[in-house]
Amino acid sequence: MGLIVHKYGGTSMGSVERIQNVARRVAKWHAAGHQMVVVPSAMSGETNRLIALAKEIHPQPDARELDMIASTGEQVSVGLLAMALKAIGVDAVSYAGWQVAVRTDNAFTKARIQSIDDAKVRGDLDAGRVVIITGFQGVDSGGNITTLGRGGSDTSAVAVAAALKADECLIYTDVDGVYTTDPRIVPEARRLEKVTFEEMLEMASLGSKVLQIRSVEFAGKYKVKTRVLSSLTPPDISLAEEAVSGTLITFEEDDTMEQAVISGIAFNRDEAKITVMNVPDRPGIAFQILGPIAEANIDVDMIIQNASNDGTTDFSFTVHRNEYQQALDVLNTKVRDHIKAGDIGGDAKICKVSVVGIGMRSHVGIASLMFRTLSEEGINIQMISTSEIKISVVIEDKYMELAVRALHKAFGLEQAV
Amino acid sequence: MGLIVHKYGGTSMGSVERIQNVARRVAKWHAAGHQMVVVPSAMSGETNRLIALAKEIHPQPDARELDMIASTGEQVSVGLLAMALKAIGVDAVSYAGWQVAVRTDNAFTKARIQSIDDAKVRGDLDAGRVVIITGFQGVDSGGNITTLGRGGSDTSAVAVAAALKADECLIYTDVDGVYTTDPRIVPEARRLEKVTFEEMLEMASLGSKVLQIRSVEFAGKYKVKTRVLSSLTPPDISLAEEAVSGTLITFEEDDTMEQAVISGIAFNRDEAKITVMNVPDRPGIAFQILGPIAEANIDVDMIIQNASNDGTTDFSFTVHRNEYQQALDVLNTKVRDHIKAGDIGGDAKICKVSVVGIGMRSHVGIASLMFRTLSEEGINIQMISTSEIKISVVIEDKYMELAVRALHKAFGLEQAV
Repeated sequence: MGLIVHKYGGTSMGSVERIQNVARRVAKWHAAGHQMVVVPSAMSGETNRLIALAKEIHPQPDARELDMIASTGEQVSVGLLAMALKAIGVDAVSYAGWQVAVRTDNAFTKARIQSIDDAKVRGDLDAGRVVIITGFQGVDSGGNITTLGRGGSDTSAVAVAAALKADECLIYTDVDGVYTTDPRIVPEARRLEKVTFEEMLEMASLGSKVLQIRSVEFAGKYKVKTRVLSSLTPPDISLAEEAVSGTLITFEEDDTMEQAVISGIAFNRDEAKITVMNVPDRPGIAFQILGPIAEANIDVDMIIQNASNDGTTDFSFTVHRNEYQQALDVLNTKVRDHIKAGDIGGDAKICKVSVVGIGMRSHVGIASLMFRTLSEEGINIQMISTSEIKISVVIEDKYMELAVRALHKAFGLEQAV
Repeated sequence: MGLIVHKYGGTSMGSVERIQNVARRVAKWHAAGHQMVVVPSAMSGETNRLIALAKEIHPQPDARELDMIASTGEQVSVGLLAMALKAIGVDAVSYAGWQVAVRTDNAFTKARIQSIDDAKVRGDLDAGRVVIITGFQGVDSGGNITTLGRGGSDTSAVAVAAALKADECLIYTDVDGVYTTDPRIVPEARRLEKVTFEEMLEMASLGSKVLQIRSVEFAGKYKVKTRVLSSLTPPDISLAEEAVSGTLITFEEDDTMEQAVISGIAFNRDEAKITVMNVPDRPGIAFQILGPIAEANIDVDMIIQNASNDGTTDFSFTVHRNEYQQALDVLNTKVRDHIKAGDIGGDAKICKVSVVGIGMRSHVGIASLMFRTLSEEGINIQMISTSEIKISVVIEDKYMELAVRALHKAFGLEQAV
């Protein structure tokens, strides 16, 4: 018997019938004696509809007013789910973020949760009620409604679980867990029973869209035991079966973990590469290049600078493809002449492929196996970047699937450890 | 230069283009130097959509949760209107009822406003901002969202105007004012420039659907100068022209008023008549008949009991047609044998026609002119009921239009006084 938080995405809440299925699943957990808190998203399509309406009024709608509007989708969801629970005899109560209250800063459309009051929720739980809280939103110190940005309901759920010191946070989604890589590319890809918080963080930031990255950060910071699992199983599947399905994000490296060197292969085609050639090799040069990029609100991912031979160096970085042209414009107009650089080159036809694994810390040879595998497939590596538990390479984008399949096989990911 | 409250109905807020027209109209008043508060309804169809969704989950959805859902329509409206004002250079801010706060009792789906905090709104007005407040809703002492019931946005607007001691409350709607009677029945029907609060109350309760009756009660209680006018005029119509359009609800009987004996003819076909015959004429009999009706939550409108001749009397009353059969069932099963009454008769093919006028107080002969007019048309009167400023008759429903036209002519309502 514990305190359990469930989170359901927009697809799971997408129709009256699906909401009734969610209610049956929650009722099952409640009947088993757990105290239940549920954080649902808006019905699928609803947030997009609201934002489109706002954009008809103004292409860049006022952020505070946008949050006022966008937050209503979740408010409808929580009310409907409370009704659906009551309809099957389970007492339930819904709260908007401000009613709990979920307190955030005032960065409208991308607010961050600061604290969550638990008094009201605990009172309801002690009275045996299922408590349903809007995802994606909170209230700032001025009493204004804020939203957390896309995917924010994941973060809401983990934050609520942290505030209530929940035993587990279950994120129900339309995939059945975290895989060693995308099964659409590698049919042998295997669901991971467990993954460490740090690995999940790298996977999320590398484009595995299972969880919003901020929710993973929250889970790590507050050590919230979080499980990603499918909302597509029958709602009356046995509790024992459901409790071990999906993928658990853990914080201990237990015995099982030590044996796995690499947990997964992440990849994305979202980036473009830019190289500033023959940059004078002197202090401050990185800032002079990236300062104007940052001022233009362009996010930079990988940054590479090599040692110089002749007093100049090549400086490379990657940006999102959508901002590639803008980044080139900034460099050509504000940077090149100023720092007396040579040519500025770029390439949008790249992809990034990464191997991620907590075991990498204590195993040598991961990098060499990765590079050898790519070499054997005749794939040229354009950029390399490493962190403690990840090695990423940039390669030509047409080789992406080939590289992912080859690496998945080379690291033996199709077999459970 | 004053403090003005505008209220816009669902049709006026029904599309992005219409919301932009509302913004232009509000901006015009703001530009003339007025402090502006706007109370919009949900976009037309939205509240019905939300309630239908709830009823798919449960035919009698939980009232608290229904309010949670139904209140979101207005929240979207206020956000969109604030954006539309900002888009044309007018600073504006939107508030949900709980943010103001509009405090109500906790009678979900039909809550009553208890008080409105004006501090936040005054601060914004003093800073030159247009303040936009959700209609139809508030918050109870427990922090739960409540709604005021159908048409509640009228009441919200008048209550906000009362709390802020506004100079005038303008209710924009899809008719251009209050008429002497329905122009679809009497083409000569004339728009009233003014109508007293008491007359408006009788008109509203008699089925003129221009204003929600509770908003009229509020206007009367707090002496809020309220004007009903058209939202269909061009938004840039001159302020002078707009300020005298529609119908003003007043609280003084000025010189003009004294000359008008009758202000209008109201009517409806919503009722059915029930008569319990040969009722023993003894104390407590009315309660014994109507008690079980009230217990069944059936509203009663007219009640008539005549003097008795032979120790028994006939007792008649009217109910809404939708509840006619239920009322008959209650009488037949729970009342008749108990009080030893005779037959129970009923007739759903009736209508009620009323003449309403503050001038009636000081003029004799209104009733006789009314009865003579109906008699001359060969219309039999089945029931009569009077108040200080109203005379109502029940007649066969096929005569309704004929009766209304004849009375409109007999009282000279087609000519301005």
